[in-house]
Amino acid sequence: MTHKVAFIGMGIMGQPMAKNVLARGHEVMVFNRHVEKTLPLAEFGAKVARTPVEAAQWADVIILMLTGPEAIDAVVFEENGLLTGRVEGKTLINMSTVSPAYTRQIKNALEPHGVVFLDAPVSGSKKPAEDGSLVILASGPREAVVEMEPLLLTMGKKVVYCGDAGQGSAMKMVINLLLGIMMEGLCEAVNLGQRLGLGTETILDTVLSGPLGCGLFNLKAGMLKSGTFPTQFPFKHMTKDIRFVLQTADNAGAAVPAGHALFQVFRQGLGQDLGDLDFAAVKEVLETMSDR
Amino acid sequence: MTHKVAFIGMGIMGQPMAKNVLARGHEVMVFNRHVEKTLPLAEFGAKVARTPVEAAQWADVIILMLTGPEAIDAVVFEENGLLTGRVEGKTLINMSTVSPAYTRQIKNALEPHGVVFLDAPVSGSKKPAEDGSLVILASGPREAVVEMEPLLLTMGKKVVYCGDAGQGSAMKMVINLLLGIMMEGLCEAVNLGQRLGLGTETILDTVLSGPLGCGLFNLKAGMLKSGTFPTQFPFKHMTKDIRFVLQTADNAGAAVPAGHALFQVFRQGLGQDLGDLDFAAVKEVLETMSDR
Amino acid sequence: MTHKVAFIGMGIMGQPMAKNVLARGHEVMVFNRHVEKTLPLAEFGAKVARTPVEAAQWADVIILMLTGPEAIDAVVFEENGLLTGRVEGKTLINMSTVSPAYTRQIKNALEPHGVVFLDAPVSGSKKPAEDGSLVILASGPREAVVEMEPLLLTMGKKVVYCGDAGQGSAMKMVINLLLGIMMEGLCEAVNLGQRLGLGTETILDTVLSGPLGCGLFNLKAGMLKSGTFPTQFPFKHMTKDIRFVLQTADNAGAAVPAGHALFQVFRQGLGQDLGDLDFAAVKEVLETMSDR
Amino acid sequence: MTHKVAFIGMGIMGQPMAKNVLARGHEVMVFNRHVEKTLPLAEFGAKVARTPVEAAQWADVIILMLTGPEAIDAVVFEENGLLTGRVEGKTLINMSTVSPAYTRQIKNALEPHGVVFLDAPVSGSKKPAEDGSLVILASGPREAVVEMEPLLLTMGKKVVYCGDAGQGSAMKMVINLLLGIMMEGLCEAVNLGQRLGLGTETILDTVLSGPLGCGLFNLKAGMLKSGTFPTQFPFKHMTKDIRFVLQTADNAGAAVPAGHALFQVFRQGLGQDLGDLDFAAVKEVLETMSDR
Repeated sequence: MTHKVAFIGMGIMGQPMAKNVLARGHEVMVFNRHVEKTLPLAEFGAKVARTPVEAAQWADVIILMLTGPEAIDAVVFEENGLLTGRVEGKTLINMSTVSPAYTRQIKNALEPHGVVFLDAPVSGSKKPAEDGSLVILASGPREAVVEMEPLLLTMGKKVVYCGDAGQGSAMKMVINLLLGIMMEGLCEAVNLGQRLGLGTETILDTVLSGPLGCGLFNLKAGMLKSGTFPTQFPFKHMTKDIRFVLQTADNAGAAVPAGHALFQVFRQGLGQDLGDLDFAAVKEVLETMSDR
Repeated sequence: MTHKVAFIGMGIMGQPMAKNVLARGHEVMVFNRHVEKTLPLAEFGAKVARTPVEAAQWADVIILMLTGPEAIDAVVFEENGLLTGRVEGKTLINMSTVSPAYTRQIKNALEPHGVVFLDAPVSGSKKPAEDGSLVILASGPREAVVEMEPLLLTMGKKVVYCGDAGQGSAMKMVINLLLGIMMEGLCEAVNLGQRLGLGTETILDTVLSGPLGCGLFNLKAGMLKSGTFPTQFPFKHMTKDIRFVLQTADNAGAAVPAGHALFQVFRQGLGQDLGDLDFAAVKEVLETMSDR
Repeated sequence: MTHKVAFIGMGIMGQPMAKNVLARGHEVMVFNRHVEKTLPLAEFGAKVARTPVEAAQWADVIILMLTGPEAIDAVVFEENGLLTGRVEGKTLINMSTVSPAYTRQIKNALEPHGVVFLDAPVSGSKKPAEDGSLVILASGPREAVVEMEPLLLTMGKKVVYCGDAGQGSAMKMVINLLLGIMMEGLCEAVNLGQRLGLGTETILDTVLSGPLGCGLFNLKAGMLKSGTFPTQFPFKHMTKDIRFVLQTADNAGAAVPAGHALFQVFRQGLGQDLGDLDFAAVKEVLETMSDR
Repeated sequence: MTHKVAFIGMGIMGQPMAKNVLARGHEVMVFNRHVEKTLPLAEFGAKVARTPVEAAQWADVIILMLTGPEAIDAVVFEENGLLTGRVEGKTLINMSTVSPAYTRQIKNALEPHGVVFLDAPVSGSKKPAEDGSLVILASGPREAVVEMEPLLLTMGKKVVYCGDAGQGSAMKMVINLLLGIMMEGLCEAVNLGQRLGLGTETILDTVLSGPLGCGLFNLKAGMLKSGTFPTQFPFKHMTKDIRFVLQTADNAGAAVPAGHALFQVFRQGLGQDLGDLDFAAVKEVLETMSDR
């Protein structure tokens, strides 16, 4: 079954994800606050909406891939937002990373309007988004998730069913916590090794050839070797995501001592103007924090 | 070329490593402070020495796989220690985990006696030791490392040359820092997920199927699912190793904020009597630290 | 000039503060959600209101001394709340501890109704509240603060003018951060000393007789000597206050590494059921975190 | 009773302390590795020794006020060190800050030579050293401490008896932990307040007028107001002292989470070249760690 998909949010992630949906045979109408970001998709054959509500009216499935609560609130509730049109019976899939608490809030606001609400954030950044190899953390009514699975699999290699709406975001918090700690760990290790006189290449080869080797480290090894950090997942977004994680952990009463250590390092990085680099640039913060 | 190998230290790691040396055609004489730990190797065909010096006199290569500086000092310097016999021209390979500073100290004490000193700690625990799939972090004179490489490869799948003696231990510090942080990260993430109502199995499957999946997490997933922690690498040894890492980082002036967070969690675990469990039991410390 | 003061909130702090207002010649009508907490004041001569709005209608000055945003929202906005009556021209002084962000929010909600809004949290706990020796961190229009100063000085020994409304709460965050860190510091120091074999009394006498000696440590020394923690300022409220501090620091982009360390210790304490003890019971958390 | 006092170590602390000993009627012979540092005392009437052993031979009481273990080892064990002469029956008072472990080590090395060994580090920095208002943390045989008390009171206002030799150093660790945490706390609080728009003077006045006010904060308030940090107690020495504290806490199995947070901030400060400023310059590290 093919869908008419309103894809809202054309950032680093949204563009390649929408492209994959389109490439696998669905119809796609895109919207972005800055219309120039919709051009690559338009060239690729997507329709372009001038407002969120226009896209939503046309579609039977609405996908949100936005930077956070403020952006979602804007496309849902504000002038020309989704709720200024009829949305009854449509499925809305929020794939943006937000806290479980916000997810439940937006769900409670949307369901009275007859929307089927799914929560499906993703694990993976720019590269897996391009390859369609994201892991999709889906939650909401099980039958609705099952129905949307073929559509979701145009963007990812795997759909994990996490439970009621909100649980996908919960899983995303879990993954992001681990993601941040592992990146921090690799950078602390490489920085330590460099100061002990080991070669960066030797360090990374040793890590990658043993039980600590993983896709993430493989992806970032080149950045650490070259000392340049072209953006796959922006440092400032990671910082924001860690903030969501800490708030969620605090609400849940869960101890996250490494998470707290992490947050302070990332926050210092914002002050060092690293926000727009890849989040592997946390290595540069650690250099500042070390003796010179 | 086959060697006569004195293998000193029959702990969790030493036993399977010595077995692999023997199985690949070298002669082996083992020593352990508690002689009963040498029995499995004796049954397997190894000679058993009553003193360190007896093993060392007989061998051309001496391997140390001991718990730390105190144990090494004992077999080298004390009554019936290696230096009570002639060791000139023999190769001594220290595979125990110690700090780079101690490695250089022991090297400086041994070389005047004509010993060729190599430093070759390993990455990997019980299972890779049994499978002969350790990664061996070798340092010392390059030609001596090359000469010993076939012997080392009876125990491991890869030999990484790290530089002058001491640099193998430096690399081990780097690996241990990352190992500890990753284990802590996985446990913080699983603990958070559980408190958010996610299934442990779902969490681990999600982690393992994405870019964070790695051999370590694969090895420990069963422990986290069952909540039991049969020892592969003891919690108390990991705590000791993190202490070495922090000292080394401090001497090197390297910032290790997650490393410090880690240490406090592990130290609390010693107080909770987790020392003899696997170090994945850090999960239990995090539970204590969380709301109930 | 004497005032008719509506005093809302009869907790550990509110009761003695209202008593001092009354004792210095002002008329007082008190309100508390649980009416039995108003009895001591009634016996002392205060009027008792059945609803917040009743007290507010009668008074020219309304003082709030409540546990946090939820309690304030309830007495202001809900059924029988202040805003269900006319409040034009009255002065409302919020002395509860809340974040600067919430303070500005409540100010913006009240001012359109003609209220003169002041923000005046206090430094000091139960004992200074009884003695009338609180330090009052007042903010809002300067002339209004000046006008209210005599009334405020019935409760405290000093009024510090902090700036526009919200800045009193900002100062309170600053004081609470330091308060928490100092209490944590004293407890880490005493715990360390005890484990090193020093007498608790000797440690405290040494601290108190030198440049680190202060009113806070003097107040808590007895608790640490006896190992009992009768409540002056509840552990759970301190934990809540540290959370406000961290949120405020995060919004302001201010690094608070010791603050983060602190929060984790306090949160662990909630899990150990210390919430209702005095916050000096953080000592007990540190014992749990130490080797046994 | 007057003594012939060998005073070894003419740093920021040693000079004014030796001056006070001399001023109160004892004879004093000073030694310092760099002889020019002995000049102020020579002008004031002290004898100057060319070697440690010369001073020790002449004296009946030997006081050490040095920067750490290396400096002590040098004046005791090396060429022209104390032990190259007869020291039997003399009293040696180590007033330098070192760990309890090192104290016991040096005591064990000295006592076989007939020395009466006392351990008497001080609480207080440059100003109290000049005023003779230090608090002296004395340990060793009780009768020896009692005998030396009049001499010690020429340098301090109070002698606290802490127990067997080593316990004075233990107390010093306790005091230094608290000192570091309080300074860190004040600087985090002031930095937060400044970012919230509060005046530095208002913040400090509020702190000083309430239960958190203490001699330390009074001493440092001027530095924080002016943003300049003329050295009373050098940042680099505080960093070294925190390192001793953490090692001691680790050996004792005592949890010091704020202590660990502190250490990382101070270590970062060394990298920012703050080492020679007063340790209140930790404020500048926090600024670097905050958003700009």
